[in-house]
Amino acid sequence: MLQKRIKIKDALVLAPVGSFITVMGWVRNFRSNRFIDINDGSCNANLQAVLEFEKEDPALLRRITTGASVKVSGELVASQGKGQRVELKVDHVDIFGDSDASAYPLQPKRHSLEFLREIAHLRFRTNTFGAVFRVRHALAFAVHQFYNERGFLYLHTPIITASDAEGAGELFRVTTLDAANPPLTEDGRVDFKQDFFGKPTNLTVSGQLEGELGAMAFSEIYTFGPTFRAENSNTARHLAEFWMIEPEMAFCDLEDNMNLAEEFIRYIISYVMKHNEEDLQFLDKRLEEEEKTKPEAERSGMGLLEKLNFVVDNPFERITYTQAIDILLQSPAYKKKKFKFDVSWGIDMQSEHERYLVEKHFKRPVIVTNYPKEIKAFYMRQNDDGKTVAAMDILAPGIGEIVGGSQREERLDKLVERMEELHLPLEELSWYLDTRRFGTVPHAGFGLGFERMVQFVTGMGNIRDVIAFPRTPNNCEF
Amino acid sequence: MLQKRIKIKDALVLAPVGSFITVMGWVRNFRSNRFIDINDGSCNANLQAVLEFEKEDPALLRRITTGASVKVSGELVASQGKGQRVELKVDHVDIFGDSDASAYPLQPKRHSLEFLREIAHLRFRTNTFGAVFRVRHALAFAVHQFYNERGFLYLHTPIITASDAEGAGELFRVTTLDAANPPLTEDGRVDFKQDFFGKPTNLTVSGQLEGELGAMAFSEIYTFGPTFRAENSNTARHLAEFWMIEPEMAFCDLEDNMNLAEEFIRYIISYVMKHNEEDLQFLDKRLEEEEKTKPEAERSGMGLLEKLNFVVDNPFERITYTQAIDILLQSPAYKKKKFKFDVSWGIDMQSEHERYLVEKHFKRPVIVTNYPKEIKAFYMRQNDDGKTVAAMDILAPGIGEIVGGSQREERLDKLVERMEELHLPLEELSWYLDTRRFGTVPHAGFGLGFERMVQFVTGMGNIRDVIAFPRTPNNCEF
Repeated sequence: MLQKRIKIKDALVLAPVGSFITVMGWVRNFRSNRFIDINDGSCNANLQAVLEFEKEDPALLRRITTGASVKVSGELVASQGKGQRVELKVDHVDIFGDSDASAYPLQPKRHSLEFLREIAHLRFRTNTFGAVFRVRHALAFAVHQFYNERGFLYLHTPIITASDAEGAGELFRVTTLDAANPPLTEDGRVDFKQDFFGKPTNLTVSGQLEGELGAMAFSEIYTFGPTFRAENSNTARHLAEFWMIEPEMAFCDLEDNMNLAEEFIRYIISYVMKHNEEDLQFLDKRLEEEEKTKPEAERSGMGLLEKLNFVVDNPFERITYTQAIDILLQSPAYKKKKFKFDVSWGIDMQSEHERYLVEKHFKRPVIVTNYPKEIKAFYMRQNDDGKTVAAMDILAPGIGEIVGGSQREERLDKLVERMEELHLPLEELSWYLDTRRFGTVPHAGFGLGFERMVQFVTGMGNIRDVIAFPRTPNNCEF
Repeated sequence: MLQKRIKIKDALVLAPVGSFITVMGWVRNFRSNRFIDINDGSCNANLQAVLEFEKEDPALLRRITTGASVKVSGELVASQGKGQRVELKVDHVDIFGDSDASAYPLQPKRHSLEFLREIAHLRFRTNTFGAVFRVRHALAFAVHQFYNERGFLYLHTPIITASDAEGAGELFRVTTLDAANPPLTEDGRVDFKQDFFGKPTNLTVSGQLEGELGAMAFSEIYTFGPTFRAENSNTARHLAEFWMIEPEMAFCDLEDNMNLAEEFIRYIISYVMKHNEEDLQFLDKRLEEEEKTKPEAERSGMGLLEKLNFVVDNPFERITYTQAIDILLQSPAYKKKKFKFDVSWGIDMQSEHERYLVEKHFKRPVIVTNYPKEIKAFYMRQNDDGKTVAAMDILAPGIGEIVGGSQREERLDKLVERMEELHLPLEELSWYLDTRRFGTVPHAGFGLGFERMVQFVTGMGNIRDVIAFPRTPNNCEF
């Protein structure tokens, strides 16, 4: 058993002055041959260890470099310096592992996010990514706690699937067939009967359809797992692999659905504000610095903490798609032809339109409901007007769509009719239709893109900086 | 907004007698034109609603069939019957959705697990699968709570990866190339440069290597995500897609690792015993019934609850691999040549050997340590004897290996030497080696197969019955 250590988070806050402690961590900086800044990832702050270099072996002192791992024991004393309650008066230093300063990519200075993306295996050791991933952790835990408290059952929907929930098409194929020489059928086509699952399979784009099966038994379920899009989008907003949370509720309509989504978002943000205050303050400052480097027109005008407080304290705006289009048509931006894409009833709103609504017009998160059925998925409940469906998207400032949901079409005849219109394979989805054949109920649900949520809460502009190892076109490192 | 309902779990336990409530759920059974057993998935028990059929429309009564979804309002009264505190005196019944009794596959009788596997989209609506998946949920939540309480950071390691952590080989390929006509290079090979990620990629078999990167910054992390094996094993113990929990701890050796694993297993079992008493009692009885149908020699001899209590109350046995082999060599089973596979130092123990140790010899979970290095992965820490590595497997009664872990080789030279012996691509794993180049520390971790844990806690014999939609060779339904 290794010697007991105390985490730096606890040393900084809980341990009484005068106690003799041992910490283990990595050297962030060693200043004046005297002050070692040690970080163990438990919190943003370093513990400052103060040694009397006159008493130490010079060979040892030379090994205390940025990135080296150390065990330091000593007495916790009230700090002389500013910004910390305590510091460690070193009694003993051991080096676990050296770090050649000339080779170590991280130095005690600011590195660009682009550079750190190249060394994603080490970027966790920086202040920024330490804070981002601790916030990500807290958000994930808050998700589970929120649903568990409310009696939702966590359902692990399948990752490999033979169905395409959204009919979206951009799928990754999963196969064990030989890439160069796949077995062929007599008529020369690839013989998927010989593939691992005996048919073509792909990575899931959503757990919703399977989630509905769970909701039809447990009333309320949620998923929280990876989903995939083989979309060739090299943007700061897209990942090929991302995590999604999808609650699905029986006995629930569109309004209940919106209420839950708002409550959910507010809950997880509040949780992080309570548990990760130090990380959010760091990220707030980081964003402020970053904003200063931007042209004034591109600045958000609201600080990170200010924005989070605002979202927690204020209800989201709720408008119909039709109202949204009207607002856009009445907007100065439209009249001055500032939108790149045209606006008319029926369009799938572009990012510029969503941003106008959220950032310029309402200046808060907006829930848009009742979209034209042509631009939404087959399973959404048809409204009586014959034109729209009971969909809802939540648009967030700086992020765009963060939630997409709907009441589901629970009427078998309406659902089948729509599927036939869209030439969907009824036979293949027979299991899905069984939920409407046997004890169908009004139900609804939504999907929240977890990385977009992490972006929203951390203020990070590029989605690749909020997931540990981003997967994007031509990029699958580590 | 739909009318407010109360969940049956709360109605049965919390709601005061005399209160007027509305429940929504599915009819499990309708007896004597009078008693409706309603289940909403919130708990194993049904709420019995009692109606006066003389007052109801006969057309409505005919629609109250097994599987139909209903909304029932009425007064909660003390129950006249046995086995429940309260029942619902019906004031009003509404049908949400019918269920044609002649077509509905589930009837109020016992169905075989094999049959229910065929209709996995409906099996959640049975008592057995209701209990199994509520227990699965509770276990999953307990996992997150355990690590969160201890300051471990939940790291989402990648699902699509270009590396093969275990060198195991049985991988699912992930691709967007045309299956029939993949692009070729000039020398006629598949041109993976044109694949989505610009190189061959596959589904992860373990998040460990990436987990180690996290632990080298946050000290303690865990993963909880899907992992994949394209193994052509059609057994009751194997899945192609399963969920795994992998904690990884810096400043931790093999003994710390074993201690954490034991504490962890005990914690999540205790959590379920506290929160899912009713489900476990049902599953205990179910297993007892099932055991009765087996030949005496195959019965486990311990009831489910008895076994869980035993595991929570008693330390696991800890032995070395060398001791394990000695025990096997001394065993009556070996002497009477009852093992199918031979026993000698150096073998990869077979299931029959593990079962002997756990079920016959020690009659409790066993941790086996210090395996021969030849049968373990390259990253395990080499012991001073030159023959063994600091590995540990936990073997559980009725399940076999439930945890596999080790202290990791933190010494760069030793690690590189071993990788060279095994002809592993040093260049490709350069990012992994960086953790040993820069501030390496003693560290350890393990993987727990979540489905095997769910099997252990629910007593379900087939792993396909503890995951919502099992993926196995030639089977990728729903």
